[in-house]
Amino acid sequence: MREEYRAELAEVTQTLVDMAEGVRDAMRQASAALLEADATGAEEVVLGDAETDARYHQVEERVYDLLARQAPVASDLRLVVTALHIGADLERMGDLACHVAKIALRRVPEVAVPEELRPVVGDMATTADRIAGKIADILRTADAARAAELERDDDEMDELQKQLYGLMLGTAWRHGVEPAVDGALLGRWYERFADHAVNAGQAVLYFVTGEAAAPAV
Amino acid sequence: MREEYRAELAEVTQTLVDMAEGVRDAMRQASAALLEADATGAEEVVLGDAETDARYHQVEERVYDLLARQAPVASDLRLVVTALHIGADLERMGDLACHVAKIALRRVPEVAVPEELRPVVGDMATTADRIAGKIADILRTADAARAAELERDDDEMDELQKQLYGLMLGTAWRHGVEPAVDGALLGRWYERFADHAVNAGQAVLYFVTGEAAAPAV
Repeated sequence: MREEYRAELAEVTQTLVDMAEGVRDAMRQASAALLEADATGAEEVVLGDAETDARYHQVEERVYDLLARQAPVASDLRLVVTALHIGADLERMGDLACHVAKIALRRVPEVAVPEELRPVVGDMATTADRIAGKIADILRTADAARAAELERDDDEMDELQKQLYGLMLGTAWRHGVEPAVDGALLGRWYERFADHAVNAGQAVLYFVTGEAAAPAV
Repeated sequence: MREEYRAELAEVTQTLVDMAEGVRDAMRQASAALLEADATGAEEVVLGDAETDARYHQVEERVYDLLARQAPVASDLRLVVTALHIGADLERMGDLACHVAKIALRRVPEVAVPEELRPVVGDMATTADRIAGKIADILRTADAARAAELERDDDEMDELQKQLYGLMLGTAWRHGVEPAVDGALLGRWYERFADHAVNAGQAVLYFVTGEAAAPAV
């Protein structure tokens, strides 16, 4: 019974790893499509989100199944339910990658991001990619040091968002309202992607070690 | 045992009702503060969010407790876990009310919303209030017709968001970039508030009737 429980938990973990890698790829591809006005790449991201949703559904089904059949004790129970929170964060990260891809699509064949914003948006994309990569890492290795880095990564993302808004609200801005509205939303989406990743990362550490103070939700 | 289970479930439901009413009040007060540049009102919303968070924590504790002590059967299990999803949506709605309040605070003593946007922002606030009110109603009355209305309310919110963006991107816009960036974020927050309410409403219907096809998450 205990062994069966562990095996089922490992399956949930593997599905979460697949989700984490999937949303990381999605955001990477969405960012590339955004900065290169690549319609095909952006469309792939939007279509690919159904797979993330399906995996989240799998996580849910497995968790319910596990709870019903194994009736885990209180501490394990909390841990198993944490998988749902992680899945929900990852699912939302996939949605945010779609939002970025849709901004790219709305402006094709133009690049949606004016030239002077591209370096900072590129940095946001790089930070998002690094953060998302850590979720899968922590799921696989239960590395607490890696999880601790996430707060710093998130601060970096907040700083980049401030830079982005500063450029749009500065006196040198010559692009008018539309790219600023897109820029405001883009900034928000990268920032939310990082927030969800930090939430997921803290919950993941608890999920794989059972040792954090509380799951982040 | 069964009776005890029902009593505990009723307690969870009551905490969710309190959360739903709390976030409804928060968004109503945030919207009023936004449109009247009322710093005190906006600050109250920001400070008050801790109570919503505390209630969400209560929902979590009660759900874990209930799962551990009552070990519900598979169908009840799914239902009990749904309370966590509802709580998470409501908690997020509280955050979004705070975001609106913070925009108000950033521009005080100015009104953050330019005059020609106020009617549509006012309509978004009214729609948000109506939607949030339905969550508590459905929790109390299990009224499926009320839950069915939420999709239409959400469509209305999407339509209002389009109107808002149309005004900011139209040729008559004379306010430059900053109020447009605020406006883009405000539109997004009301829209997300409605999205979470629709999610919560569908999950609530399942939670109180056990009869919907699946919980919305």
